[in-house]
Amino acid sequence: MSLTIGIDVGGTKVAAGVVDEHGKIVEKLRRPTPSSDPAQTVATITEVVTELRGRHAVDAVGLGIAGFVNETRSCVVFSPNLGWRDEPVKKAVEERLGIPVVVENDANATVWAETRFGAARGHDFVVLLTIGTGIGTGIVIGGELYRGRWGIGGEAGHYRVVPDGRVCGCGNRGCWEQYASGDALMAEARDFARRAPEAATRLLQLGGGTPEGISGPEITLAAAEGDPVAVRCFEIVGSWLGHGLADLAAILDPGCFVVGGGVSEAGNLLLDPARTTFENSLTGRGHRVPAQILLAELGPDAGLVGAADLARR
Amino acid sequence: MSLTIGIDVGGTKVAAGVVDEHGKIVEKLRRPTPSSDPAQTVATITEVVTELRGRHAVDAVGLGIAGFVNETRSCVVFSPNLGWRDEPVKKAVEERLGIPVVVENDANATVWAETRFGAARGHDFVVLLTIGTGIGTGIVIGGELYRGRWGIGGEAGHYRVVPDGRVCGCGNRGCWEQYASGDALMAEARDFARRAPEAATRLLQLGGGTPEGISGPEITLAAAEGDPVAVRCFEIVGSWLGHGLADLAAILDPGCFVVGGGVSEAGNLLLDPARTTFENSLTGRGHRVPAQILLAELGPDAGLVGAADLARR
Repeated sequence: MSLTIGIDVGGTKVAAGVVDEHGKIVEKLRRPTPSSDPAQTVATITEVVTELRGRHAVDAVGLGIAGFVNETRSCVVFSPNLGWRDEPVKKAVEERLGIPVVVENDANATVWAETRFGAARGHDFVVLLTIGTGIGTGIVIGGELYRGRWGIGGEAGHYRVVPDGRVCGCGNRGCWEQYASGDALMAEARDFARRAPEAATRLLQLGGGTPEGISGPEITLAAAEGDPVAVRCFEIVGSWLGHGLADLAAILDPGCFVVGGGVSEAGNLLLDPARTTFENSLTGRGHRVPAQILLAELGPDAGLVGAADLARR
Repeated sequence: MSLTIGIDVGGTKVAAGVVDEHGKIVEKLRRPTPSSDPAQTVATITEVVTELRGRHAVDAVGLGIAGFVNETRSCVVFSPNLGWRDEPVKKAVEERLGIPVVVENDANATVWAETRFGAARGHDFVVLLTIGTGIGTGIVIGGELYRGRWGIGGEAGHYRVVPDGRVCGCGNRGCWEQYASGDALMAEARDFARRAPEAATRLLQLGGGTPEGISGPEITLAAAEGDPVAVRCFEIVGSWLGHGLADLAAILDPGCFVVGGGVSEAGNLLLDPARTTFENSLTGRGHRVPAQILLAELGPDAGLVGAADLARR
């Protein structure tokens, strides 16, 4: 049985797993990300792999990293989360470990996992949205991971949905992720609680009395209870999500969208309004087969599983 | 030498050409599109092919049609321009002619021609924009024409750039083609001439004295002379074009964009503002290789040449 290691390198933690060819995680380890120093992060990756190799015969290592990865999958061009620029991670890790290493954008690794082993099994044209703080996107086309000419494809969280709209961390205004992310959901709820505290009593109660105490889990809980303000927040954010999916469908006509990330744990609270808006917004509706909108199945380990599977290929 | 016939089936004319494997048109014929009756259009296609086959040994026929074509490239699902719905064109033409027929969306045929023989030669990741009345788009990915899961991929003219924006013929509001097309250019110029006729004297003069007389060629001529109002119209439309290209680059990261269609005959009057806005709007700029923005090279015959070449494959 062929085993590979997949590692999800995030801003706060390094999660590594030994994964078999069916996408099953055989063993998993976690370490805090040491700092924004790439050399120290590479050292942590090396340690984790060395430890796992002590117990498993492993053929290759795949790294899923939040950031731009170049077209040869060797170098992290730019990672705001990690504070990296032009880091030749593949070479650095391969030299230390003597094992083949593949570097991939984390959302790309995730869409790969969901297509191979998760919600999009059997689909060849898949767009994945990871809805957390922002929106990460990964694309599978014709059964293959789509990278674009320079490796930067699938950054749909930064297409513009509102001219002169909300400021985005990328330096632009009006990016989709400012309207359809976990941060957007939280901003809606807090704004509501500030402006109409008498209507937002349940949210404020869950948030410990202040708007700033309200975050994703509180909003999801309140909405699940039927609190109208929390439900409305999901409707607003879900509608922006559905509009964006209609735009992506106009451009790409995928067979399905897979929605994952922390906010997707709210399930149909988010997806119902997204589906309604998608169906009412898709260009050429009534004359085409609309893409399915599916909930991700693999949870937070998807990136690790996808990176491991990409390393195998 | 292998020859195929390519036919561009538009709302007003049927343009057919015998094309060699280098994309060269050996002979060309034109007929008016008889009516919105699919049977009569198929009869015209049959006549034209029969006439051309009388003088050339031809292996296959490719049809480029403005509309949604299904994923098996056999059926025109929906063509507002031709008034067709669910027309099995491939079968209808093959039965009459006894020769293999491929049906393709016209913008798809055009991007294929520009990639094989035109501005995007040597590129594997290409997005083409045909800027005329609206915006047609075609996509080449990994050296292959991209169709999407159901054949409807590449309708980027209908992604939304302005919430609650201008009404579009597709039934939505705020579609890109309402802001970055020939119609948008004309609307800007006419609106200007209506509101500030004293500043728009040159445009009004070229338009025969009325705002309604001002159309694309007049605006291009005035802008080429340096008329500030006409130049400003191109800046506005070019800026919307550049913003849209930045959005498509966020999603697809192509190696190049090719801009064709009637409005592109204005050349740098359109592309200079588009390039400026693109460079200032691209997410992650400074950390990536930006796509090139190129002018189409093959002119109005590109669709015909592309359809012929697709029929050969």
